[in-house]
This record gives sequence, structure tokens and C-alpha cells, in this order.
Amino acid sequence: MATAVKVYGPPFSTAVSRVLACLLEKNVEFHLIPVNMAKGEHKRPEFLKIQPFGQVPAFQDESISLFESRAICRYICEKHAEKGNRGLYGLDHLGKASIEQWIEAEGQSFNPASSVLVFQLCFAPRMKVRQDEKAIRQNEEKLSKVLDVYERRLGERRFLAGDEFSLADLCHLPNAHYLANVADTAELFTSRKNVERWWKEISGRDSWKKVVQLHKQPSASA
Amino acid sequence: MATAVKVYGPPFSTAVSRVLACLLEKNVEFHLIPVNMAKGEHKRPEFLKIQPFGQVPAFQDESISLFESRAICRYICEKHAEKGNRGLYGLDHLGKASIEQWIEAEGQSFNPASSVLVFQLCFAPRMKVRQDEKAIRQNEEKLSKVLDVYERRLGERRFLAGDEFSLADLCHLPNAHYLANVADTAELFTSRKNVERWWKEISGRDSWKKVVQLHKQPSASA
Repeated sequence: MATAVKVYGPPFSTAVSRVLACLLEKNVEFHLIPVNMAKGEHKRPEFLKIQPFGQVPAFQDESISLFESRAICRYICEKHAEKGNRGLYGLDHLGKASIEQWIEAEGQSFNPASSVLVFQLCFAPRMKVRQDEKAIRQNEEKLSKVLDVYERRLGERRFLAGDEFSLADLCHLPNAHYLANVADTAELFTSRKNVERWWKEISGRDSWKKVVQLHKQPSASA
Repeated sequence: MATAVKVYGPPFSTAVSRVLACLLEKNVEFHLIPVNMAKGEHKRPEFLKIQPFGQVPAFQDESISLFESRAICRYICEKHAEKGNRGLYGLDHLGKASIEQWIEAEGQSFNPASSVLVFQLCFAPRMKVRQDEKAIRQNEEKLSKVLDVYERRLGERRFLAGDEFSLADLCHLPNAHYLANVADTAELFTSRKNVERWWKEISGRDSWKKVVQLHKQPSASA
């Protein structure tokens, strides 16, 4: 029997959540190993051996250690192509190319703006860090422009990469969750009818609902 | 005979350069189609059909149009696995996972800091845009921390993903080229002996030297 993979990091972290959603879509057993970031555990030498940038998540499976959430998701999908949601990373060369294109749109356009907003609007108040109003305004503008492109795309196709839910949609879930449900920025999604339909559909998946449940506990296995 | 792929955009663009370096490594024939960004051609409706964010490059091959340079590179490597540099995107599942991890490190850590510096130090003066001293200082600090991680990694392995040159190293070439050769920031590389050795080796490849030649002309085919 295969050993469960290990995911190091708190489930409320957006990057940890991305990996958990992928594992749940692919029906891959995992152990979630707590990393107390408030105590700086992600900067300790033993953690830096598996995540040299001192960020979460880190990931281990048999002989391999990996970091970077999107790279971990690709590895899970490639290794477990036949498990769980088989089409998550595409079923052919062209399908995969479209998924990669929209994973990169997430990583290079959606994430830079949305991650600033998630930090400023959701995490800074909890950490008693002063909010940067200028950064909030600038990144709301940037994200609005990105979502205008998404609105047109989602008027043509049900999901970003085509007519099936894919890793490209999944990669957006963590930041979008905080913006739609925790920060006061749900209008970014609800004011665009195709984006709103898409967000309701992808956030309603069982895999994602389980991740949101995990946010409520500091550590867990599944 | 296969038709040459089309790459839309000026070769001096870092993202266009990334795709060109990949095509040259893989020995894939291409036509470079000029896009005059000074005249706003990247924001025109006919261009937005193939690149909805209004950025360069856009890419076409037979029936598929793609954007996002790293996604285009992955597509080229997957389609032409047996052509040119066969190991560029890994020869097995674990090799590919390590390459993906370092492509993401480039996209999420190296690129955000280095692209601000490339814009501020190389492009802003040409465009007569006022430089943002604070952004320059902050991003030099960020990039230094990233390169400290690279320095340790490159003390253990010849290249980022292992002992062979890969798509992960290649993705760094365009921004690193501007910082090492155009801006006054070569010390970021030369002050770190492993990073310096790596940079000399990857920038000395024939594929990259050809890309640098293409920077000197507004459009080209190969």
C-alpha cells in the first residue's frame, strides 16, 4: 500500500490550500503536518532543508521533497493520472496546453494582485499589521482588469481552460475564497456575471468544501 | 513538412526571449512577427483575440493559439519531446517535478523582483519614465534574498533542477541578461560564486547567444 504523502504547513495558508484541493480532487491520501508560522517554524534550519525559501507548503512523497504549490499540484496530477478526477490536468496535449496557459495566467496575473489583497484585507488585521491603503487600491484596480479578461473568457467557455473543471480553475480557489468570503471584496466576483457563475461552481465542489473545513482546524489528516 | 510556428512580439521583450530560447534549444522552426508596442499594437482588437491580456508574446502552431511564455515553453517541450535538447523538460517523472519546482521558483520569486528591476533600470530610462528609487531598493533586497537561496542550491548541483541544463535555468535567462549586461546590477550575480558560475554557463549557450543577436533587430525568422 502506498504511504500517504506529507504536506507541511497550516491549512489556512492559500498555497497549502491549493495543494490540499488537488490531493482531494485526485483522491490521494495525505498527512497534514503542522508548521507554526507565528513561532517562526518555517524559518528553522530543519524546515529550510525541505523548503529553502522558508515558505509553506513543503511536500514529501517517498523519495522526493518538493516546494511551490503549483509544481506540487502538477507532480500529483502526473503521478496519479488515473486516480480521482482524471481530466484535472488534461487528457491530451492540447488540453494540457490550455490548462498550463491559465495556470500561468493565475500565477502571473491573478495571484500577484489577489495575494496582496488577501494579505492586506484578511491577514494584516489578524496580525495587527497596519494596512497599506495605496497597495489595496492599486491591486483592486489590477485585479479588476484581470477579472474583465476572465469575464469575457468565461462567457465563451464554462471553465477557464475549456468545458471541464481543471487544475487552472483549482489554482484560483484559495485567493478567491478569501476575497469572496472573508474580505469585503465579494463584489469583484458578483459584479461580473460569468465570473460569479464560475466562482459558485468551482467553490461548490466537494474537494474545496473539505479544504474550507480544514481551515477551521490547525492540522488534520485525510 | 511542419509549418513554422509563429511568435508575435519584439525579441527584446523578456517573455518573447524566453520562448525564442526554448524554440532554439528544441530546434523548432519559427517566424517572429513584429508587434510595435510603442504604437500600441498589443492593445488592438485583432491582437487581443490571441492575447486577451494585451501582452507579448502570443504564439500560434497549427490549430492552437497560446499566451504566457512559460506555458508556451512547456507546450513546445511536450510536443517536440524528441527534438533538439531532449532533456530540457526532464526525461522522467521525478526529473520533471524538480524542473517544475524551479520554474515556479523563477515565476514566483525570481521574476517578481527581477522584472521590476529590469523595467526600472533598463526600460524606464528608454521610455523616459521616471525611475522609482524605492521600488528599485526594495526589489534589489528581495532579489538578493532569492539569489542567496540559489547560491546554496548551486553549491550542491550544477544547475537549478539537477546536473543538466533545463527549462528551469532557461526561464531565468531574459531577466538575468538585462540585470547582468544592461543595468548596473551585475554584482548581484558576480558577488555569489556559484550563481556567477551558473550564469556564465547558461548565458554562454548557443541558443541564448542567438536570442541576444535577435535583440538587435526588430523582427526575424529562424
